[in-house]
Amino acid sequence: MIHVVAKNYIKEGKTEEFITVAKQLVKETNEKDSGCIRYELFQDLSNPQVLTIMEEWENKEALDKHMAAKHFKELTAAFAELAEKPGEINLYSKLA
Amino acid sequence: MIHVVAKNYIKEGKTEEFITVAKQLVKETNEKDSGCIRYELFQDLSNPQVLTIMEEWENKEALDKHMAAKHFKELTAAFAELAEKPGEINLYSKLA
Repeated sequence: MIHVVAKNYIKEGKTEEFITVAKQLVKETNEKDSGCIRYELFQDLSNPQVLTIMEEWENKEALDKHMAAKHFKELTAAFAELAEKPGEINLYSKLA
Repeated sequence: MIHVVAKNYIKEGKTEEFITVAKQLVKETNEKDSGCIRYELFQDLSNPQVLTIMEEWENKEALDKHMAAKHFKELTAAFAELAEKPGEINLYSKLA
């Protein structure tokens, strides 16, 4: 199992636009990508510009296929211009 | 529901010690704290010094009670001296 936390720092005034695109990504990923156990969008309670996608994948292969998929590439292409600064992506294994 | 990502940056050579304490915290939290839906420990696949606890709570009240609990205070007291730099804690609500 691979757990992913993809944390985005979005420009003020661009959060709604990001949320719309990210929700579409959540929808299409859940529909199309095999091996996807969990793929969810979250917003920080104290800073609405912090928008994070938390994911769980059966294995690295499933995650790699997702990141090569058309819908992922097209939808995340919009993220860069909405970002205030580079995000952080961590791939985790569960210890306990 | 409240989702928490508590990311820790642990000193080289201190990760095993942190993992031992964090596993005890995971165990006691799951046993003792009502309103705890998920409380798990993860290690970054590319940087073993990044150790993150991901949590899910029924509401803020349950999370606050947890952070006031004896086992939380005692076990997390050890975290500070094991840390290479301050961690990051984000409290999230789920959007999708």
